[in-house]
Amino acid sequence: MKAPKEEVLRRLSYIEGHVKGIRKMVDEDKYCLDILKQTYAVKRALDKLEALLVDGHLQGCVRDKVQAGQGDEALSELAELFSLARR
Amino acid sequence: MKAPKEEVLRRLSYIEGHVKGIRKMVDEDKYCLDILKQTYAVKRALDKLEALLVDGHLQGCVRDKVQAGQGDEALSELAELFSLARR
Amino acid sequence: MKAPKEEVLRRLSYIEGHVKGIRKMVDEDKYCLDILKQTYAVKRALDKLEALLVDGHLQGCVRDKVQAGQGDEALSELAELFSLARR
Amino acid sequence: MKAPKEEVLRRLSYIEGHVKGIRKMVDEDKYCLDILKQTYAVKRALDKLEALLVDGHLQGCVRDKVQAGQGDEALSELAELFSLARR
Repeated sequence: MKAPKEEVLRRLSYIEGHVKGIRKMVDEDKYCLDILKQTYAVKRALDKLEALLVDGHLQGCVRDKVQAGQGDEALSELAELFSLARR
Repeated sequence: MKAPKEEVLRRLSYIEGHVKGIRKMVDEDKYCLDILKQTYAVKRALDKLEALLVDGHLQGCVRDKVQAGQGDEALSELAELFSLARR
Repeated sequence: MKAPKEEVLRRLSYIEGHVKGIRKMVDEDKYCLDILKQTYAVKRALDKLEALLVDGHLQGCVRDKVQAGQGDEALSELAELFSLARR
Repeated sequence: MKAPKEEVLRRLSYIEGHVKGIRKMVDEDKYCLDILKQTYAVKRALDKLEALLVDGHLQGCVRDKVQAGQGDEALSELAELFSLARR
């Protein structure tokens, strides 16, 4: 992985804690709209993490593969990535 | 919360474990595309959880409020929910 | 439809013109990234139109149905709407 | 543009006709949920068109740029494309 590792780990820890917090809210029978607001917030946090990972992939792995003459493989992987992101 | 509590908790535990697993992948410097596939999978799992929560909200809280003559409040909350879901 | 009709029609005309403009760009072999930027812009315009329609639906049709004692039907329709919006 | 031109134009014509059809529905005061179903369908059609354009971009323009030694420019453009797709 070529994205800044410390920042990726920090964001993942935050997301994990956020999900744990939602579980606590459910356990305590909080109002479902308040729970939904938190699940949307987790998805937004995942979006930002993905942006970081994609940038790292483009500037790191794809660049390396292109320079190593494996551009075709890098392009196939990017096509797959776009199709995953779209779902 | 009016969605089936056991199932919501089960899904949240699963998502929490999934995020923990991604953190381990990052720690072990796995390939970023494989990490991204997992973050997309977590978002899909959150989508399904949200569907469950929204159904519970509509069939539970909104129905109750309508019957208690608080339909207007329920509608304002739904407008807010749609705008959150859209972001 | 309970959303402000003139505004909905105005937005739809704009979107139709936008799509026609994209067709012209394709016809003239413009750069594909510039074309993609326009298709994303059309989707954002559709998002805003949908927000307007959903608000009109909630404040108009759903409110009317609730007051006419058809709250259950309105709630089933909303569940369907959420599941469409999610796809 | 490197995607199959005839197919892209065909899809755009279809989308344009679809939007025109929605405008007619609004004009005739159809039920807003039926109108919303059609706006969601147009977005799905745009998603498929975008998939086609992105594939054409990757297999055409990006490949060409990489082979012409302009890989860095191609990667910056892809980063921009991902950030647009994400919004």
